[in-house]
Amino acid sequence: MADPIDSHADLSSLSKEERLSRMRHSAAHVLAEAMVELMPEAELGIGPPIDTGFYYDFRLPRPLTQEDLGWLEERMRRSLAGKHAFQMASLSKAEAQERWKDQPFKLDLLADIEEGNVTQCTHAAFTDLCRGGHVNDTGEIPASFKLMSIAGAYWRGSEKNPQLQRVYGALFETAEELAGYEQQLEEARRRDHRRIGRDLKLFDLIENIGPGHVIWLPAGATIRRELTRWIEDLEIERGYQHVVTPVVGKKELYVRSGHWSHYQDAMYPAMEREGEVYVLRPMNCPSHIMVYESEQHSYRELPIRIAELGNMHRWEKSGQVTGMSRVRIMTLNDAHIFCTDESQVEQEVEGVLQLMEYVYGTLGLKNYTYRLSLGDPEDKEKYVDNPPMWELGEALLRRVLQKVGLEFHEAKGEAAFYGPKIDVQFQTAAGKDETLVTVQVDFHLPAQFELEYVAEDGSRQRPTIVHRGVLSTMERMVALLIEEYEGNFPLWLSPVQAVVIPIADRHVAYANEVAAALKAEHLRVEVDTRNERMNGKIRDAQLRKIPYMLVVGDREAEARAAAVRVRGGGDLGATPVTEIVAKLKGERDRKALVP
Amino acid sequence: MADPIDSHADLSSLSKEERLSRMRHSAAHVLAEAMVELMPEAELGIGPPIDTGFYYDFRLPRPLTQEDLGWLEERMRRSLAGKHAFQMASLSKAEAQERWKDQPFKLDLLADIEEGNVTQCTHAAFTDLCRGGHVNDTGEIPASFKLMSIAGAYWRGSEKNPQLQRVYGALFETAEELAGYEQQLEEARRRDHRRIGRDLKLFDLIENIGPGHVIWLPAGATIRRELTRWIEDLEIERGYQHVVTPVVGKKELYVRSGHWSHYQDAMYPAMEREGEVYVLRPMNCPSHIMVYESEQHSYRELPIRIAELGNMHRWEKSGQVTGMSRVRIMTLNDAHIFCTDESQVEQEVEGVLQLMEYVYGTLGLKNYTYRLSLGDPEDKEKYVDNPPMWELGEALLRRVLQKVGLEFHEAKGEAAFYGPKIDVQFQTAAGKDETLVTVQVDFHLPAQFELEYVAEDGSRQRPTIVHRGVLSTMERMVALLIEEYEGNFPLWLSPVQAVVIPIADRHVAYANEVAAALKAEHLRVEVDTRNERMNGKIRDAQLRKIPYMLVVGDREAEARAAAVRVRGGGDLGATPVTEIVAKLKGERDRKALVP
Repeated sequence: MADPIDSHADLSSLSKEERLSRMRHSAAHVLAEAMVELMPEAELGIGPPIDTGFYYDFRLPRPLTQEDLGWLEERMRRSLAGKHAFQMASLSKAEAQERWKDQPFKLDLLADIEEGNVTQCTHAAFTDLCRGGHVNDTGEIPASFKLMSIAGAYWRGSEKNPQLQRVYGALFETAEELAGYEQQLEEARRRDHRRIGRDLKLFDLIENIGPGHVIWLPAGATIRRELTRWIEDLEIERGYQHVVTPVVGKKELYVRSGHWSHYQDAMYPAMEREGEVYVLRPMNCPSHIMVYESEQHSYRELPIRIAELGNMHRWEKSGQVTGMSRVRIMTLNDAHIFCTDESQVEQEVEGVLQLMEYVYGTLGLKNYTYRLSLGDPEDKEKYVDNPPMWELGEALLRRVLQKVGLEFHEAKGEAAFYGPKIDVQFQTAAGKDETLVTVQVDFHLPAQFELEYVAEDGSRQRPTIVHRGVLSTMERMVALLIEEYEGNFPLWLSPVQAVVIPIADRHVAYANEVAAALKAEHLRVEVDTRNERMNGKIRDAQLRKIPYMLVVGDREAEARAAAVRVRGGGDLGATPVTEIVAKLKGERDRKALVP
Repeated sequence: MADPIDSHADLSSLSKEERLSRMRHSAAHVLAEAMVELMPEAELGIGPPIDTGFYYDFRLPRPLTQEDLGWLEERMRRSLAGKHAFQMASLSKAEAQERWKDQPFKLDLLADIEEGNVTQCTHAAFTDLCRGGHVNDTGEIPASFKLMSIAGAYWRGSEKNPQLQRVYGALFETAEELAGYEQQLEEARRRDHRRIGRDLKLFDLIENIGPGHVIWLPAGATIRRELTRWIEDLEIERGYQHVVTPVVGKKELYVRSGHWSHYQDAMYPAMEREGEVYVLRPMNCPSHIMVYESEQHSYRELPIRIAELGNMHRWEKSGQVTGMSRVRIMTLNDAHIFCTDESQVEQEVEGVLQLMEYVYGTLGLKNYTYRLSLGDPEDKEKYVDNPPMWELGEALLRRVLQKVGLEFHEAKGEAAFYGPKIDVQFQTAAGKDETLVTVQVDFHLPAQFELEYVAEDGSRQRPTIVHRGVLSTMERMVALLIEEYEGNFPLWLSPVQAVVIPIADRHVAYANEVAAALKAEHLRVEVDTRNERMNGKIRDAQLRKIPYMLVVGDREAEARAAAVRVRGGGDLGATPVTEIVAKLKGERDRKALVP
């Protein structure tokens, strides 16, 4: 960047990125100008440009309201109309300390700036400590901006510092771009699993139990149960052996596995009593190693695939816990495959990738990519130090990805502490890139636990472990599915699959008969006997995203039929009950994505 | 009892109980006599009679061996042959302290005896501190005794005191009675779920993970999965709503529920970090109350039946943990039914008792009784103090038991801290009476949590909670079933339901076809391709308690059949594969107890 004092420029000569950055930064100054007019006691933090606009952090005498945002935005537009020039100037540290002597956060920033580098920016009657990067005057800030929201933010991002109020603004060059962004936000809000989860009563996040401790309400637990039984059956068919292992283990177990030294920050504190020390397990690997160790194994038995819907516990900072996608207690569709040699490892990883493709295909997921996550030979603290092990594992995973013909990209420094992995990455509705699940090749834990099998020649050999998930944690997968389906779960996963709606009280008996016919095939069905109008009942069923509404009146009772309405529109007309049962049963058993 | 100094009596004039008690106590003296001859350094503890014989506790310079037991028993028989009189005498505390000055445990006992009450008993050359109660001489001790085992025992039962070696002896009046007892022990050993669980690789109890932390190996996890899905489906059919709730909660939740004050000794220690304090839940009740509280309820919705296969955590003393029947981490088939009024509570308790009878009937359980467990108005510390609440609950449970027509007995002081309950009691193979499961009526927790529902008249009313289990904890139920079935699980619960045994290598391909036909119906089948003789394979399958062995050779391959052998004997001869599949499928789906 040019000398900030001479940073004036013809905007049209700049890249769009640079231009937007200057506009957004300048708008932050204007926001601060408006704020000190609204509340002269305001203490100013920082106000940088961000990807979609800008923000500014303030310590204020009272919480901001939506009305304040309206006032501030209006005041900002007046400043834009005034076309006030942004004027940079140098000053000494002493001068700056005097100027901002009532602004503790500015003084804190000043402490880190070297003498000679202190600059300020003035527009209209407002002056801020600033490194530069503005438009020439407030008239060059486009009118296509909007103050969006207020959030809490710690000074310098640390929970130990005071909490400030952050005002977010969106700013784009054109009104169309701003409208597009707002639409994208609305889309994310519409798909947001937290909102849909609450509306459909799928889960609850109650402070009494603790942040990140999810309560699966009956409807959510139904989805989870269907997914659980499905993946258990799929895995058993493929030779996995499911186990159930305890969620608490002796601390020494995790010392030996290395979790205690590499991972302790992310663990719940230890529990000590009567000389015994236990921890809630952060991962299932050591438990499955105990299963492997429960008897001696011959090479003939390998690969041994130990699987579990295993509870894990991670001490996420309470501020970072998010809905169901980032929680503290989670249930992973986990497995550890104990293999003899490299070719067996390759074959097993291939099997895992094929199972993933089958599972994600059945669920209709498309919004994911494969990432080969590598270690970092220079980071001896984060990763187990054993270069040949890393090279072998990384080459192997690359080879299998290529063989199965999956597109992937590579990322350094994203491996687990004990080995490289393939990550399945997906985008949340909010646009965040998250890891759904991983496949890891691990030579480290077998050595730590001195695992063995008896080889064909009678010698003792060390197995290799493939760690893998497929469905991810139940929490993350269901969060993803909610957003993917916008709450419109396919029939087999729908908590309520059909609702029977009697037109009048005299049709209730027949409605119950229809429901009984569906229940006999284990379909999840309700009868809406509330004292409401039929259209109200249909609207409610639509809001609850129930796949089928079966309306019954005199004619339907006569014909042993129901008038079938499909979620999201579509009217199949009067259909015999036997046909409805067969249709729904078929749709469920096929795990069809659409009716 | 008469003055111990004059306690001689004609044995035949005594009750059998009193006679046996004197014989057993006397035998303990003889055991101690033999022990001080074997190890003069032996420090003597106590040696009382027990239900099946006697024991004596010793601190010894080395661990006892099986050979020692043989020597001691032999030496005791010599003492019996000697017909040495037991002679009681009084002595002063000072004399006694001098006599046992090298016997720290006797000195410890003496400290609790008042001057004037100190007595000793001498036979042959051996004298013990003793309150009396002997036969007249060692010749009156019957020869029908046996030293059975050695166990560790803390002095005065406290872990803070030194650990002693306890020698157990069995003693009965006749050789027939002794033989009967030994047979009973052998039966218990044969049925012991710990031994069978290990032999059949159902579960493992590994010290590395912690005492009472059960690892369900693949075979045991299969049984558990079948039971889990079955009870979930049964409950859902009956209107239960299954949920999944977190195993960790804020400490305050358990303070509010009263668990923290009434139950803390049985809880894992709290986990504290960054100002948050969590505990592993000891029970699921508060979690299900959170589910109830997640929205407002109308009287129309009640009863609301919240169910969960819920993990609970109890800090059992490590010495009291036993196999799978007494563990620290357990999964309870739990439910909490929120009811409006008394008549609804009665109806729900009735439904629970009926479900129990159905479930235990299907499992073929007979060895259980119902117990009505009452509070104790005088024990204000153990029980919530609210007499009318107790009376109401106790009368209600009594009424329902009578209505359903179940036999039951009443037991004071066996209630939960917050209310009375019906306990299902069963006898373990070892003859211990244990509680399988309970039904409780609870007016206390609804008040603690200020629960409400909107009544028909719009007023806010307090619901009553029925707590109930049916299948008990998975751990205890599977322990019970192992002992009930002696490991011979009915087909639907058998980890492996059939094994196909090819007579020669050339029959392996056909064996795989037979297995595939069974697998297509989701039957759990293996093919035994090991290089073993057919008879060896059949013997192994019998040891593994696999219900069906399907032997295939040339003739069977030709006829698309298999020679069917049934577990425990029985040969159905060559049977077409289609028939075998239908037979096994039917047996499984009916949950038949016998083939």
